[in-house]
Amino acid sequence: MKVLEDRIRQEGLILSETVLKVDSFLNHQVDTELALEIGREFGRLFAGQGITKVLTIEASGIQFAMAAGIALKVPFVYAKKKKAVTQAEQMYTAPVTSFTRGETYQVSISRHYLGPDDKVLIVDDFLATGAALVGLVTIVREAGAQLAGVGCVIEKGFQEGRGLLEEMGVRVHSLARISSMAPGEVQFVDHNDPIRIKEKV
Amino acid sequence: MKVLEDRIRQEGLILSETVLKVDSFLNHQVDTELALEIGREFGRLFAGQGITKVLTIEASGIQFAMAAGIALKVPFVYAKKKKAVTQAEQMYTAPVTSFTRGETYQVSISRHYLGPDDKVLIVDDFLATGAALVGLVTIVREAGAQLAGVGCVIEKGFQEGRGLLEEMGVRVHSLARISSMAPGEVQFVDHNDPIRIKEKV
Repeated sequence: MKVLEDRIRQEGLILSETVLKVDSFLNHQVDTELALEIGREFGRLFAGQGITKVLTIEASGIQFAMAAGIALKVPFVYAKKKKAVTQAEQMYTAPVTSFTRGETYQVSISRHYLGPDDKVLIVDDFLATGAALVGLVTIVREAGAQLAGVGCVIEKGFQEGRGLLEEMGVRVHSLARISSMAPGEVQFVDHNDPIRIKEKV
Repeated sequence: MKVLEDRIRQEGLILSETVLKVDSFLNHQVDTELALEIGREFGRLFAGQGITKVLTIEASGIQFAMAAGIALKVPFVYAKKKKAVTQAEQMYTAPVTSFTRGETYQVSISRHYLGPDDKVLIVDDFLATGAALVGLVTIVREAGAQLAGVGCVIEKGFQEGRGLLEEMGVRVHSLARISSMAPGEVQFVDHNDPIRIKEKV
């Protein structure tokens, strides 16, 4: 998705060989028009498959699940990272280890909102180690729902996430696929020249 | 907002005299069309004020900040609940005690995304004790930004949140204002008869 790669070039900050910061437009401050465009692209990629529900994980997947839900005209569900007082009923759960935070937490989804009648599109902001997405795929299967596939906004293709999902038989679409990063430089899959972007400030 | 009150009557679950669960359509599973309508209503209430940015707090404010951002054609920013590896720069911070979780956390917003040139609309899913919203108002003022007001989807009017915000001189709009709840019964401000809704199952 060219408009997305352009924004990553213009505004992305590489903090290390594995950490790309895009919080000026994707996951802290959010460009609503770009988020809607991302949703339309997911809608186009997964059109005509009878998707009933978009699934993501709090917090930074929510804006893209909402945008995909708008495009596909279906509700979305976001998995929660721990139990709250208002979540006493039966839940589907899976353990997830966060790449950026370095901690393991439980993700959970109410059994009321996912079941055998659903066909699910999972979306998230990043595909890196794949931990969160593997957790969501596991939950979709436990619920007996069908999985149309996984849509990610940015994929760090040099990490193991895509491989893990494909081994599980999951179709993966990423809108910007990074093949390598180094301070000041990001290279996308299918682009031959490394593109210089801003170093950490 | 009648469509919202109707959904609360149809699908809301009262877990106690202070806890209303709306996670079938607002903050776990999300009805995207209703969320967009909520955004349009915030857009109508705060039209013509030169708002540059919508502000909320992760996670359950995000869908409504996105919807308001779509309606007002501006970006939104969501405050984070703790520091991550990718947030090393200078932050505005405020302590917030969660009503539903019973714990205190730090909310933070990058100084890059809020400043004296901004006119801000704060939105959130619930107004109850007002703790999260008071924290966001404090941050907006620390940033030197102007505050257009606060928009809440559901207000528990029998708790102290509105009073705290109004004492700070903040304009508050809620789309559904609950005056009292008891198991099986919710009463909205400006409605004379208690409306029966489902008890906890």
